Amino acid sequence: MVPNLVTALTGPINELEQRVLDSMPAIERWFRLEWMEHTPPFYSSVDVRNAGFKLAPVDTNLFPSGWHHLTPEMLPLAVQAAMAAIEKICPEARNLLVIPENHATDAGYLASLAQLQRIFNMAGLNVRLGSIDPAIKKTTVMALPNGDSITLEPVIRGKRRLGVKDFDPCTILLNNDLSAGVPGILEEVYEQYILPPLHAGWSTRRKSTHFKCYEEVAKRMGKLLGIDPWLINPLFEKCGAADVAPGVGLEALLTKIRRKYKEYGIKEKPFVVIKADNGAHGMGILSVHDAKELPGLRLPAQHAGPGTRATPMLQDILVQEGVLTKERMNDAVAEPVVYMMDRYVVGGFYRIHAGRGIDEDLSAPGADFVPLAFEHSTHMPQPGVRPGASAPNRFYMYGVVGRLAMLASSYELEATDPEAEVYD
Amino acid sequence: MVPNLVTALTGPINELEQRVLDSMPAIERWFRLEWMEHTPPFYSSVDVRNAGFKLAPVDTNLFPSGWHHLTPEMLPLAVQAAMAAIEKICPEARNLLVIPENHATDAGYLASLAQLQRIFNMAGLNVRLGSIDPAIKKTTVMALPNGDSITLEPVIRGKRRLGVKDFDPCTILLNNDLSAGVPGILEEVYEQYILPPLHAGWSTRRKSTHFKCYEEVAKRMGKLLGIDPWLINPLFEKCGAADVAPGVGLEALLTKIRRKYKEYGIKEKPFVVIKADNGAHGMGILSVHDAKELPGLRLPAQHAGPGTRATPMLQDILVQEGVLTKERMNDAVAEPVVYMMDRYVVGGFYRIHAGRGIDEDLSAPGADFVPLAFEHSTHMPQPGVRPGASAPNRFYMYGVVGRLAMLASSYELEATDPEAEVYD
Repeated sequence: MVPNLVTALTGPINELEQRVLDSMPAIERWFRLEWMEHTPPFYSSVDVRNAGFKLAPVDTNLFPSGWHHLTPEMLPLAVQAAMAAIEKICPEARNLLVIPENHATDAGYLASLAQLQRIFNMAGLNVRLGSIDPAIKKTTVMALPNGDSITLEPVIRGKRRLGVKDFDPCTILLNNDLSAGVPGILEEVYEQYILPPLHAGWSTRRKSTHFKCYEEVAKRMGKLLGIDPWLINPLFEKCGAADVAPGVGLEALLTKIRRKYKEYGIKEKPFVVIKADNGAHGMGILSVHDAKELPGLRLPAQHAGPGTRATPMLQDILVQEGVLTKERMNDAVAEPVVYMMDRYVVGGFYRIHAGRGIDEDLSAPGADFVPLAFEHSTHMPQPGVRPGASAPNRFYMYGVVGRLAMLASSYELEATDPEAEVYD
Repeated sequence: MVPNLVTALTGPINELEQRVLDSMPAIERWFRLEWMEHTPPFYSSVDVRNAGFKLAPVDTNLFPSGWHHLTPEMLPLAVQAAMAAIEKICPEARNLLVIPENHATDAGYLASLAQLQRIFNMAGLNVRLGSIDPAIKKTTVMALPNGDSITLEPVIRGKRRLGVKDFDPCTILLNNDLSAGVPGILEEVYEQYILPPLHAGWSTRRKSTHFKCYEEVAKRMGKLLGIDPWLINPLFEKCGAADVAPGVGLEALLTKIRRKYKEYGIKEKPFVVIKADNGAHGMGILSVHDAKELPGLRLPAQHAGPGTRATPMLQDILVQEGVLTKERMNDAVAEPVVYMMDRYVVGGFYRIHAGRGIDEDLSAPGADFVPLAFEHSTHMPQPGVRPGASAPNRFYMYGVVGRLAMLASSYELEATDPEAEVYD
């Protein structure tokens, strides 16, 4: 299947593409200098929305699944990036323990785990999957649709170390976003590297902090490119749970967006998206075009699993500028997802959803995944090609925005590090 | 064109493939530990010969050309590796000057330069090509067959720095093997990085030193894999020019090879290859099956260009175990060439030569180049596939041998570094 990517996009996005392409060496150098000062998240995926007039990240996942959607052509890049990441963290590493989500039974998620295991195996590590799900009491082999299988083993907590039976890892890779809180079994592990750090989990993370950091990063990239940072930055307001009903912050945000739409002569109807500030998996994401739609709205509370810290039922809310997606794959609305390992873009795919509109969240049941529509050379921009006409150039731009969001996460994790040394 | 790779290989090579595959995490970790102690060459290419019963590198090029033979799928790997390399050497780098071979007029070589320029451009550098060829007196634009062009500019030597007009690089990348000696213009440059270092040029390098280092590396890998290192190591003798006619060293080497062939029950006729110990480009490489063939043989002297240090006419000789190649592409004899950037395998291709035999050097006029025969995933071994049946597994093995030769170069450059500090 070679999907037909329709990006009939004209206007500002093509100018942005041209500027991004013209500035390629400067952009790459800028990132290189940033990574001298900041540590990239171990891995990440970023949902990007391309509205035709602006391009912005809307979600940054620091415990990405979906690795099985990367094509075979992309895998060597992931392996190479994994090698670079391991080399920096623990070059002597021999054993890696991956801790997956609890309730890991979804065939797609299991396939993603198998792919991760494969990537790190090829990067030179013995990899085992250690579950902290109380339901996994013994070694459990789970079959995959393609005939492979993966083996989940219960994590064993020693006095100072984590492992599984007869396997002592030097590094623990979390593929569990801790949205139900940090379980005690992961706490006070001082002899092993836990990556990403525990405070990257949703029990600590706040979307508002992430997008605050992103705003800063977008401003600087806007300056480098000579563009209005709004073209790559979704506006947002953080509201306490009580603020939603009156919708004050929401109305203020809609006003700001209307002003921007007017400035750029955009005819679309502005909207905002309401998300739990500490939520994962797009639970309870709502699109709202008018504060009048609000009364009666109530976000579903987060799931709190047994044996974890309870999450407050009344939660803070992120009200974020809605970014349309103008990309379509066949007849379905599509949004690109960019995958990164260490500082490198290693691949991506389109998330498509036939049942959703261009102003709706696509990360929902019924979503499908399509490899990036360009057969070759997805990371290799083609200088000299007319803006909007080159899929690789478009993807290069997505990769830049994805990396900006990753860099924002890096700032975010520094700012929220409970063990950071504070210099007065 | 999807070339048909015929590797009807059975016997020891398949056992080797199996062991390499089974030991993958251990091999990768071993390399990782080596790179903690040793600096990989900036870039390299290694000619590998697969005799069916043994697999060995026969030439390691530290100023590789042929980059244009890498397929579009491989380029992102090269860009990612280039990013990693730059980051280590000079993360602030903005400008890179590439110094090509003199007499750079061959269309293939120009296409390789264009590809290199593209790779480093995408890795985030402004790249210019600065020629030290006395014939290039002004900016010279040269057309490529595909419609692109490249621009050679004469190198300008300041008191302390090298550059071209209005371009001050922080790093100078040599793509010139200095086989005619180190020109004065490159000497005493202390403010810029010159990579590879001048002593990687053929005016200093000796093949015998390289293969001595390779022997050491092969022994250690042999131990890790639990195999006779001869299976990956070509035997050799270094001879003074005067030794060739009597052929004493040559006869001794043939005897050693015969013993090994007998040990493994190999029916082929042993042979040796005679090379200039300080030579590049396979000039004057001869295959000899018997010392009696020797009288009257004389190797062509190396070319010594104007304005360079003269190379002695009487040169030392490397007599090396000949390694058959049993690989064929269509009807032509083929040998794989592995490309590396920094510590990473970034691609490769088959060098084929319809007019040469399985015991002859293929790096000669009339050679052709075919992208690696596996469409996808060239770097991704497939565990569980029967030895000999998986092209990716075969290529993974080539990549391991290529990296062993690269590691040997790293040892070699340390041993020959004129500025190395000597600890007594």
